Amino acid sequence: MPLTPQSNNPSIYGNIMLYAGTSCPELAQEISDYLDVPLSGRDLVKFPNDNLFCRLHSSARGQDVYIIQTTSRPVSDNIMELLIMLQTLKLDSVGRLTAVIPHMAYSRSDKKDQPRVPISARLMADMIEVAGADRYMTIDLHAGQIQGFFSIPGDVLTTFHILSDYFLERMSQMHDPVVVTADLGYAKKGRNFAVKLKVPMAFVEKRRTGPETEAMTIIGDVNDHDVIIVDDEIDTAGSMVEAFTILKNNGARDVYVSCVHPILSDPATERLRGLDIKEIVVTNTAPIPPEKRLPNMTVLSIAPLLAEVVLRAHEGRSVGAMFNE
Amino acid sequence: MPLTPQSNNPSIYGNIMLYAGTSCPELAQEISDYLDVPLSGRDLVKFPNDNLFCRLHSSARGQDVYIIQTTSRPVSDNIMELLIMLQTLKLDSVGRLTAVIPHMAYSRSDKKDQPRVPISARLMADMIEVAGADRYMTIDLHAGQIQGFFSIPGDVLTTFHILSDYFLERMSQMHDPVVVTADLGYAKKGRNFAVKLKVPMAFVEKRRTGPETEAMTIIGDVNDHDVIIVDDEIDTAGSMVEAFTILKNNGARDVYVSCVHPILSDPATERLRGLDIKEIVVTNTAPIPPEKRLPNMTVLSIAPLLAEVVLRAHEGRSVGAMFNE
Amino acid sequence: MPLTPQSNNPSIYGNIMLYAGTSCPELAQEISDYLDVPLSGRDLVKFPNDNLFCRLHSSARGQDVYIIQTTSRPVSDNIMELLIMLQTLKLDSVGRLTAVIPHMAYSRSDKKDQPRVPISARLMADMIEVAGADRYMTIDLHAGQIQGFFSIPGDVLTTFHILSDYFLERMSQMHDPVVVTADLGYAKKGRNFAVKLKVPMAFVEKRRTGPETEAMTIIGDVNDHDVIIVDDEIDTAGSMVEAFTILKNNGARDVYVSCVHPILSDPATERLRGLDIKEIVVTNTAPIPPEKRLPNMTVLSIAPLLAEVVLRAHEGRSVGAMFNE
Amino acid sequence: MPLTPQSNNPSIYGNIMLYAGTSCPELAQEISDYLDVPLSGRDLVKFPNDNLFCRLHSSARGQDVYIIQTTSRPVSDNIMELLIMLQTLKLDSVGRLTAVIPHMAYSRSDKKDQPRVPISARLMADMIEVAGADRYMTIDLHAGQIQGFFSIPGDVLTTFHILSDYFLERMSQMHDPVVVTADLGYAKKGRNFAVKLKVPMAFVEKRRTGPETEAMTIIGDVNDHDVIIVDDEIDTAGSMVEAFTILKNNGARDVYVSCVHPILSDPATERLRGLDIKEIVVTNTAPIPPEKRLPNMTVLSIAPLLAEVVLRAHEGRSVGAMFNE
Amino acid sequence: MPLTPQSNNPSIYGNIMLYAGTSCPELAQEISDYLDVPLSGRDLVKFPNDNLFCRLHSSARGQDVYIIQTTSRPVSDNIMELLIMLQTLKLDSVGRLTAVIPHMAYSRSDKKDQPRVPISARLMADMIEVAGADRYMTIDLHAGQIQGFFSIPGDVLTTFHILSDYFLERMSQMHDPVVVTADLGYAKKGRNFAVKLKVPMAFVEKRRTGPETEAMTIIGDVNDHDVIIVDDEIDTAGSMVEAFTILKNNGARDVYVSCVHPILSDPATERLRGLDIKEIVVTNTAPIPPEKRLPNMTVLSIAPLLAEVVLRAHEGRSVGAMFNE
Amino acid sequence: MPLTPQSNNPSIYGNIMLYAGTSCPELAQEISDYLDVPLSGRDLVKFPNDNLFCRLHSSARGQDVYIIQTTSRPVSDNIMELLIMLQTLKLDSVGRLTAVIPHMAYSRSDKKDQPRVPISARLMADMIEVAGADRYMTIDLHAGQIQGFFSIPGDVLTTFHILSDYFLERMSQMHDPVVVTADLGYAKKGRNFAVKLKVPMAFVEKRRTGPETEAMTIIGDVNDHDVIIVDDEIDTAGSMVEAFTILKNNGARDVYVSCVHPILSDPATERLRGLDIKEIVVTNTAPIPPEKRLPNMTVLSIAPLLAEVVLRAHEGRSVGAMFNE
Repeated sequence: MPLTPQSNNPSIYGNIMLYAGTSCPELAQEISDYLDVPLSGRDLVKFPNDNLFCRLHSSARGQDVYIIQTTSRPVSDNIMELLIMLQTLKLDSVGRLTAVIPHMAYSRSDKKDQPRVPISARLMADMIEVAGADRYMTIDLHAGQIQGFFSIPGDVLTTFHILSDYFLERMSQMHDPVVVTADLGYAKKGRNFAVKLKVPMAFVEKRRTGPETEAMTIIGDVNDHDVIIVDDEIDTAGSMVEAFTILKNNGARDVYVSCVHPILSDPATERLRGLDIKEIVVTNTAPIPPEKRLPNMTVLSIAPLLAEVVLRAHEGRSVGAMFNE
Repeated sequence: MPLTPQSNNPSIYGNIMLYAGTSCPELAQEISDYLDVPLSGRDLVKFPNDNLFCRLHSSARGQDVYIIQTTSRPVSDNIMELLIMLQTLKLDSVGRLTAVIPHMAYSRSDKKDQPRVPISARLMADMIEVAGADRYMTIDLHAGQIQGFFSIPGDVLTTFHILSDYFLERMSQMHDPVVVTADLGYAKKGRNFAVKLKVPMAFVEKRRTGPETEAMTIIGDVNDHDVIIVDDEIDTAGSMVEAFTILKNNGARDVYVSCVHPILSDPATERLRGLDIKEIVVTNTAPIPPEKRLPNMTVLSIAPLLAEVVLRAHEGRSVGAMFNE
Repeated sequence: MPLTPQSNNPSIYGNIMLYAGTSCPELAQEISDYLDVPLSGRDLVKFPNDNLFCRLHSSARGQDVYIIQTTSRPVSDNIMELLIMLQTLKLDSVGRLTAVIPHMAYSRSDKKDQPRVPISARLMADMIEVAGADRYMTIDLHAGQIQGFFSIPGDVLTTFHILSDYFLERMSQMHDPVVVTADLGYAKKGRNFAVKLKVPMAFVEKRRTGPETEAMTIIGDVNDHDVIIVDDEIDTAGSMVEAFTILKNNGARDVYVSCVHPILSDPATERLRGLDIKEIVVTNTAPIPPEKRLPNMTVLSIAPLLAEVVLRAHEGRSVGAMFNE
Repeated sequence: MPLTPQSNNPSIYGNIMLYAGTSCPELAQEISDYLDVPLSGRDLVKFPNDNLFCRLHSSARGQDVYIIQTTSRPVSDNIMELLIMLQTLKLDSVGRLTAVIPHMAYSRSDKKDQPRVPISARLMADMIEVAGADRYMTIDLHAGQIQGFFSIPGDVLTTFHILSDYFLERMSQMHDPVVVTADLGYAKKGRNFAVKLKVPMAFVEKRRTGPETEAMTIIGDVNDHDVIIVDDEIDTAGSMVEAFTILKNNGARDVYVSCVHPILSDPATERLRGLDIKEIVVTNTAPIPPEKRLPNMTVLSIAPLLAEVVLRAHEGRSVGAMFNE
Repeated sequence: MPLTPQSNNPSIYGNIMLYAGTSCPELAQEISDYLDVPLSGRDLVKFPNDNLFCRLHSSARGQDVYIIQTTSRPVSDNIMELLIMLQTLKLDSVGRLTAVIPHMAYSRSDKKDQPRVPISARLMADMIEVAGADRYMTIDLHAGQIQGFFSIPGDVLTTFHILSDYFLERMSQMHDPVVVTADLGYAKKGRNFAVKLKVPMAFVEKRRTGPETEAMTIIGDVNDHDVIIVDDEIDTAGSMVEAFTILKNNGARDVYVSCVHPILSDPATERLRGLDIKEIVVTNTAPIPPEKRLPNMTVLSIAPLLAEVVLRAHEGRSVGAMFNE
Repeated sequence: MPLTPQSNNPSIYGNIMLYAGTSCPELAQEISDYLDVPLSGRDLVKFPNDNLFCRLHSSARGQDVYIIQTTSRPVSDNIMELLIMLQTLKLDSVGRLTAVIPHMAYSRSDKKDQPRVPISARLMADMIEVAGADRYMTIDLHAGQIQGFFSIPGDVLTTFHILSDYFLERMSQMHDPVVVTADLGYAKKGRNFAVKLKVPMAFVEKRRTGPETEAMTIIGDVNDHDVIIVDDEIDTAGSMVEAFTILKNNGARDVYVSCVHPILSDPATERLRGLDIKEIVVTNTAPIPPEKRLPNMTVLSIAPLLAEVVLRAHEGRSVGAMFNE
């Protein structure tokens, strides 16, 4: 990703203004630093009656406003805070309003894989639009199709380059690596990872074999290979434990993990701590509390990516060109 | 309120189906009992990643569906749960979908009384509509105007009759009672209460007199009167303490409280426990946990009111007629 | 209200263009003079068949357009004229379109205080939006909540500073003044007035005592005080007569009136002429025909306020900052 | 038009309820009589402040509601009254809501025949929809295309059969009649009239020949013919005077007039009184005040047509079949 | 039409970018040449599965984009291609998006002239809006009312000046010309043509006289006149043959034809070739394949008109002023 | 799928009416036969000017209408025909309107897998909604997420049971079968197929190895196995040829194919004819012209599935229950 140096091109949408919710203050500050644009002042309060409240310190009329708020844990509060900030800024007559949501909650609830369930990811899109967003930015949606849930334009960015470039550099230290996915729904994205690294791939398949039993199979060859397990998020790490175990049982050597979203729901940290994983590489789309930062965990920052896209969106320059696309 | 006995009139909207969220199970059960319609089965789960999920046990296609969910504490979760249930049922192709929300969160955030703040009550209305509700029911909105925030029809019901009838019966035990409001924004509704009881009224007025000081005044006469303080909700009970004190200082005898919504945010219970209030009368628009139920607290149920309105809405009969309106 | 001198800051919305309907030509001219921007030419015709028609003299493509039209008497015609002008300008592909409506008709029809009535203020909002307005400006809505009826942003301005500053200057000539409201729904706004003037307040309460009879009470003390009756509009002045009478009966000295909107429906002028009111202070949100201008009437102009806000909206500067908010 | 006798077929939309605005009470009563359904009670008030108000006497929940309101003079008031009634009924949770508007105001403002003018007929459609109508009915729109201005379904009915059948019966008393249109925009509809009567047609063409002068020409032959001038409305009757004069100058014998909408704006009545027209046949899409009813005027009622269509719409039966279409 | 020389006025909508669909490449190139703005690169592919696909070569973020695509034959493909291009550009976050559609398909399906048929022209408007257009431009809609089908602003341009100016120059070579319309629905526009040329007019009227027979009549005088038949489009030329024949039978001399849209559906070319028409004058709103270009056909280009309007729309200057309106 | 015998349960949506477009007349007739409801008469015409037109033979007012139209080749015409039929029926005031679209065109254009491309599947959803559909039904969308592109409810059905049951019966004739997918994006659905058949699975992976070269790999084991290749559609069959070849090279025995949508774009038929495939099993979501029906092709009908779902949707009964879900 060849980043452009900052410019001061004029824009048709006023000046960039950055607002941060309470969900990811460090990421917001990094973006602010990159752009050399301070975070605008705002009060975000939770009243005793559990209602959230927002007040801007100064006017954002006619400006090009970006609200940075990820929607990881506490999910409902973070969503409500985002929506309330959006409405507050819309009512303040901003020039253009963009919701920057590094991790989009409910992305996994993106289709009716059984009857009588919601498509909550569509509800997210509808709420963001009705609250007043003109555009949105997000990172590595669980399914690319979710972009079609929005009727407003958006930039759905990927950490593929950040993560694969990182592993490309570490390749020389690995022994005949293989890319593995533990979820067949991620097979195609896993393949892209393997292609970038020019290595073969394999799959872990899990099947229910009885009411209480299930069987794991490896499709492809991992014996005597280092393994890079790729996925889009680490949630409770339950399937990670299973994958790790069967991989080791099938002769895998060192195991690496590459994941976009470090959700790390309990007991993920305990589970990961118990596995002999060489390196767990994630990004900071969701903040990782100190107690969940393991020694073998590497966190790559998405701040430069988001900041650069904010700048290009503001100036009307191509975002695709960042990736030579 | 002359309640109608249940009928089995045919409806153009399929059959009544009742769904309850997790916020007020007892109220939902009471409504179910009144209507002799069971609560329909559904799973409501919070996944480890803090995302909510809903699954209906059976189909509600073409039926007249009512979702009962109050939006008191935990507010954000209760709202999200409501919205997800609405979308799930809309996608299930129901005949008509009504959100029954006894206490509407964010009702107090109903206007921009300072610049650069949200109108979160409008956001609530927008979210409820975009999630798929065809209609809504709620009780004693902080301001009647909030009904105008919705573009769908709704029934905004009042507990005025329930509460004032209750005090009307207790009048004989009181000594020359006066109705008092501690919030001038509630003056007009307080007046209606006084008119119903045929008693005079007075006001507690609070003014900021310096950066850290404020003065309380009583406008009207409370000396040697029993006093009924009326308000729409008890939140932290801070102004209740102040009002109680100045009323007593001005010669008030017994103090009663009549409030619709028992929000009871901390430290409301501690504060109320410390006051010598004769009786605190509230309704169950929000559930009161056992540890917050004080000995002098009377809870009047709104279940018959809501159930009766569900029935009339279903059968296409007048709701206003319940109140001789 | 510290007004800013005019500036020529560039705007992202083309140039300011002002259009006036036929309802308040003098106010429109004042705004035009303040901004040094001429009123743009347009024909407004009522055809023999009672249909209104609008034709712009020149193009407003890509410009920042403000239509100044109050919706006082004749209300229906003024509303239709406003809507037709909005659509004409929208179809002319303007850059941004703002409806400036000093007095918003139907503001008092803002809630269903009885069953089976409209919320006409919401209908107003819907019509203004569907006709093409991107934003609106108005003054002292009957209830602040009406702002939530719009899904477009707007500036709801207040004459509170203009009116209270005026009385603050006259305070030295008054004898121990008290602020009084004759409508309990206005109690809270009346209180703000009293706080600004640092004087006590009292209330006139009216109750129906029989099919044909009603009783007036004063809550609070007015004896030997000058009184300032505050309200948001003078309509037929019926309650003003009643309030004046009971205030005098209770020992009030001089009576002043402060009202925002001089609606002055018949027989208001006759009634006011018959009362010995010291001074009636109103604004020009609605034009006052010469025959209704009483000798004791002071009209404060809102033109500088509106003009200044037009300028700030155009330039993307804060409006709240005008009031040190 | 073979009318169907009333039936009591069940409907999926509740029962028929009829509401009348104040614009055409006699027509509404005729429809009510035809259907044997009483007009539902409602208050329609104009407050002293010129704001309109509506209150329904009883509930219309879940019913199939028809509001009968023409939008002739006073146009703005009649439109506002219609919109307020629509919103009132929508908020009352009716089953289906149909606006019955015999004469649609602003129909002639249906296109931008010069730059920078409105398309007010589209504004009418937008207002009717935003106020809550699910459907509409109207009669002989100035241009059939106006139906495309609505995004809701509607029944645009025609009086063609009523008027042409009437003249077909009178044909035997006429001398070699010719159908004439005085407006080339009505040429095609005039032709349909001539075809139905099996007579030839001619046109009156008017051209501006100088700043102050214009010339009339007759295209086709009228000498020694009786003439039937057909048009969609009589407004001020100015072009009627001109057409009558040149027709007579070209040897026309008796002149008849057939018009749908009797707008009769001043000085239409004076002008028509001064012409020796044999018979002026109109319908009652707009009420004709007694002083405008000339001795040679025949008014054909559209009440059976509207009533029959209400019935068919209610029962889900074909309307087109009424006209053998 | 006094065309303005190109200017480089700044715009609030980024820079002009032109995209062409595949329907009228020559016209798009002419517009590009006139504006000295190159056509932006894009791939337009029809996949083997008959699905269309669009890919832009570079970003159009924040720019003022015009898509040039007529919707003549193949109509469905051209419409889909237009819609897909619109969505692609909307999702690319353009500043403003204008659909330039010289010939609007389905314009003749603009009203329900019989029951149970579509108003496809409204569907066109709805699809263009839902695909993301902010504005549209088109030429000589079949009925001016179609502009009211759109809720977005647009420029509906006319070739009236181009065509009538052309004939005005040729007048000196004609013998006492008469303007004739063969469709009474076009009578009014034909009249405007005749007024501009200061010549009389006549009409061809066709009536069905039996199940299989019809009769043609001429209303007005054509004997020994040259005749200019005016219409908005030549489709199959069936009625042109009939009109030509009866005009000649009634003594007409040379026959000229003036039509806006050269649809030329089979067997139009064969039919026109068989008639002795002096000159057929059309525009290039639809491309004419070489095999359909007859020797007596003159094609006037609309490219300067469209290009000039693009420029004025971009710069926020009046379009009406081009026509001294 | 345990099908329910037809019932005559009453519905709140009028009677079932079925309309067929021209794209799949045989399938429509099968559905009609299953339901014993005749296809309603309609004219569908393509005018000489390439514009489509629809006319209903009789009224569908207040009925529960289903339009059966697949959107396979010719795609643009089939889409336009569907949209025009939808609008025609919406304008006819139907009770409920469902688009039944067995194969949804543009399903593969469901995400922006590169910058500056459309999400045409979302455009499809938007067009279907704007044309007037209240609901939709379709079969095996390329990605389940596409259901979230619609804001109206729908039934997205699957042929999984039909196809897998068919192979389950044939299992006894196969030799140790393996399920194979040739597209990693279909891996998860392929797995479900394998689980149902209780057989292992393998993957064909294709990688670009140079500008002109690519390599195929098999992940998993196929040697000496019969192979069932599963996919959602056969388009040009190019990847089928590749997969077949490498499978055979790796020792596969008989090869079977199971595909939902028989798109069969040229040269699919030639290619398939050249491969020694044991059996190609498809459904009739798209009609297969006789010349493309190969001897080894089995077509399973979806008519009973669609018909049963129409019936259940009409009667308000569960669809999920058909699949024991």
